Amino acid sequence: MKLVVDANIPAAERCFGHFGKLIRVPGREINAAHLQDADALIVRSITQVNDQLLADSPVRFVGTCTIGTDHIDQAALAQRDIAFASAPGCNAEAVVDYVLSGLLTLAERDGWVLSERTVGIVGAGNVGSRLQARLTAMGVATLACDPPKAAVERAEEEPEQGFHSLGALIERCDVLCLHTPLTREGPHATYQLLNAQRIDELAPGSVVLNAGRGDCVDGLALRSRLAGKGDISAILDVWEEEPDIDAGLRDLVSLATPHIAGHSLDGKLRGTWMIEQALARYCGQSSDLTFADICPPPALASLHLQHALPPEDALRLCMRAVYDVRRDHDALQRQTLNYGMRKGFDDCRANYPLRREFATLNVQLSGEAVALEGMLRGAGFVVTLAK
Amino acid sequence: MKLVVDANIPAAERCFGHFGKLIRVPGREINAAHLQDADALIVRSITQVNDQLLADSPVRFVGTCTIGTDHIDQAALAQRDIAFASAPGCNAEAVVDYVLSGLLTLAERDGWVLSERTVGIVGAGNVGSRLQARLTAMGVATLACDPPKAAVERAEEEPEQGFHSLGALIERCDVLCLHTPLTREGPHATYQLLNAQRIDELAPGSVVLNAGRGDCVDGLALRSRLAGKGDISAILDVWEEEPDIDAGLRDLVSLATPHIAGHSLDGKLRGTWMIEQALARYCGQSSDLTFADICPPPALASLHLQHALPPEDALRLCMRAVYDVRRDHDALQRQTLNYGMRKGFDDCRANYPLRREFATLNVQLSGEAVALEGMLRGAGFVVTLAK
Ligand SMILES: NC(=O)c1ccc[n+]([C@@H]2O[C@H](COP(=O)([O-])OP(=O)(O)OC[C@H]3O[C@@H](n4cnc5c(N)ncnc54)[C@H](O)[C@@H]3O)[C@@H](O)[C@H]2O)c1
Ligand SMILES: NC(=O)c1ccc[n+]([C@@H]2O[C@H](COP(=O)([O-])OP(=O)(O)OC[C@H]3O[C@@H](n4cnc5c(N)ncnc54)[C@H](O)[C@@H]3O)[C@@H](O)[C@H]2O)c1
Repeated sequence: MKLVVDANIPAAERCFGHFGKLIRVPGREINAAHLQDADALIVRSITQVNDQLLADSPVRFVGTCTIGTDHIDQAALAQRDIAFASAPGCNAEAVVDYVLSGLLTLAERDGWVLSERTVGIVGAGNVGSRLQARLTAMGVATLACDPPKAAVERAEEEPEQGFHSLGALIERCDVLCLHTPLTREGPHATYQLLNAQRIDELAPGSVVLNAGRGDCVDGLALRSRLAGKGDISAILDVWEEEPDIDAGLRDLVSLATPHIAGHSLDGKLRGTWMIEQALARYCGQSSDLTFADICPPPALASLHLQHALPPEDALRLCMRAVYDVRRDHDALQRQTLNYGMRKGFDDCRANYPLRREFATLNVQLSGEAVALEGMLRGAGFVVTLAK
Repeated sequence: MKLVVDANIPAAERCFGHFGKLIRVPGREINAAHLQDADALIVRSITQVNDQLLADSPVRFVGTCTIGTDHIDQAALAQRDIAFASAPGCNAEAVVDYVLSGLLTLAERDGWVLSERTVGIVGAGNVGSRLQARLTAMGVATLACDPPKAAVERAEEEPEQGFHSLGALIERCDVLCLHTPLTREGPHATYQLLNAQRIDELAPGSVVLNAGRGDCVDGLALRSRLAGKGDISAILDVWEEEPDIDAGLRDLVSLATPHIAGHSLDGKLRGTWMIEQALARYCGQSSDLTFADICPPPALASLHLQHALPPEDALRLCMRAVYDVRRDHDALQRQTLNYGMRKGFDDCRANYPLRREFATLNVQLSGEAVALEGMLRGAGFVVTLAK
């Protein structure tokens, strides 16, 4: 088997070497000539996969190691009977890390405690459902809103998972986290889901976090509320018109980051590994490669807590040792100051520093700190009880 | 022996119980009646120790577990032949922690590397000399300015330690750290030491940090430079007119904290222990109590680095796990917003959270991370090489 693989895919040899011969080509340069005698094509978001690229090639399998599939003409693939796989959810844990880091930073800054708040989750897919699971395990109250999922449940007469309306979330939650895709049509279109009226309805003290898609929030309306009454706060990772985002809105939000919530090394590697698993299935092979096999050990192996400290201070300590969202906020400020908005925003993404996920940190607990076990494990760390 | 001891002094029983009977009285309430049959008086800054308090008392030893002595009428003590001890330098390590945390936070935010800068230290006393030692051990270039010390050296024909003038520091340093006491008279008066002219001379990109005394810097001039050209940055822990500090200046500095640079638990305990040692000497006893004996273990015992990471990122990771100056900056913003400047400033100090010093953290290194040994040890952590 011969595989053409984007040269920027990490751990490619380890993941795909056992299928056959790899031809590594920079994603932007992959063209029809490279595919003349290729059996499989493995890409990231940068390669446009369409009729033109695949013309006359013997390729039978296309995989993209990303959650996005906008760069893939799936109809063209189906017509040519080419198997296709993407990596949905591969970086969902990284987004949850981002959300927890953001909320706990805001809580410290503004003097509140996350475990006393109710978090509303809009879009309970790969990201939202994991966020709900972690918050629940941490003892934080949540309410989820996902009308498409609720409709499927009703249609298939599945047991209801208790989804709520967006209105109910706005009424009952202190924090609203958006994790919806962008859809412009249909009964559940998410374009401007959080529109001016809904932003107006948010209770004073509310926190809005968007790590889904920028266009799901009416940025102008959010900006007016922040600049006017100024009685709510916002954390934004996604924006309308990226990378040419509204500098006025950026300056009013508490944490402003350049669409990097999911940018962990682990997320990238998990995407690659998911395509390895999919290709093995396609080939009718069983692969015994595990995700742990390709995941390098993190620089920070462990930390040891031996005494009582306020639970959310302990959480912040562990989180920030792995990932501190303020680094990314500061980088966006600095780079847009240096290079202007468009170039600064893209530069932060292109030169994003290595980031690991919470699950790579082993937290050892002893003494009174063992009381933190549930919360820290719930937040996603590997917790062991030391002597 | 009977000792009257401020009820707020930590570890008092452990430190002074072996001398005799302790009478614990809240510092503000200690009066002449309490001292009627006392042999020693141990206070913190809150108790005014003067003729009136000591009148007719048999007290022979007064100790203050603080570096400040403004609350002690030392002439009155001398006249009554009462021995006196204070605890100079007891919280100097905490101030150095603050300075390193502040500079490395600014470096990350603004995109520079501390080890490529030259740090000027104005006032090479307990704090300044320790700061210089740590920076040097970390491989950071420093220049110190201390005319009173330089004069003593010249007079006593001691080997010169190479002090420089303030003008030379301003010319040659990227960062200027002030650690001078406030003196209004004499050839080396520090009142408005950094005056309008000197602030004007600072090169673009300079950083000014003041953790000495607020009046050593002309706040109005600093404010004009920050608001006008805006081409330097400042970190201020001390201010003119505390607690009624200039909100305009506060909003222009990169990190603004409420005179807490020295507020570590370790610093407080070290002050108490130093007075224990002084009292033992006064009594002609030898005390085998060590500082480690009274220092409780920290909540964070250790962390383990097993892989290469950029040296200053490693530093930041370790520092922030112990102390993150942004917490104190955020608290001042929040509390002055909630309660106004005066009350907010004082409230931050009165309710200061428990803080430990870098030296309480054990950093274990293995693999490529062993290359970080020198820098981390230089910064003040306890470093051990793990397998
Ligand atoms: N910021 C980042 O770095 C980052 C990283 C990963 C994903 N994302 C984005 O986050 C979004 C969610 O990602 P995912 O992997 O969880 O996607 P997903 O498809 O697994 O989940 C999306 C969920 O939203 C629900 N939904 C659709 N319309 C809705 C509506 N009107 N109201 C409420 N819920 C609705 C869907 O039913 C689905 O359950 C996507 O847009 C993705 O592009 C961003
Ligand atoms: N921010 C805080 O929380 C905090 C904590 C501890 C100390 N401090 C303050 O920091 C200052 C220094 O503390 P310390 O314990 O190192 O004091 P120190 O007395 O040990 O050292 C002060 C040094 O400043 C030098 N000095 C005096 N005049 C000078 C001048 N004109 N130019 C340069 N140097 C001059 C002295 O010679 C001395 O070496 C004090 O004012 C103290 O109150 C603040």
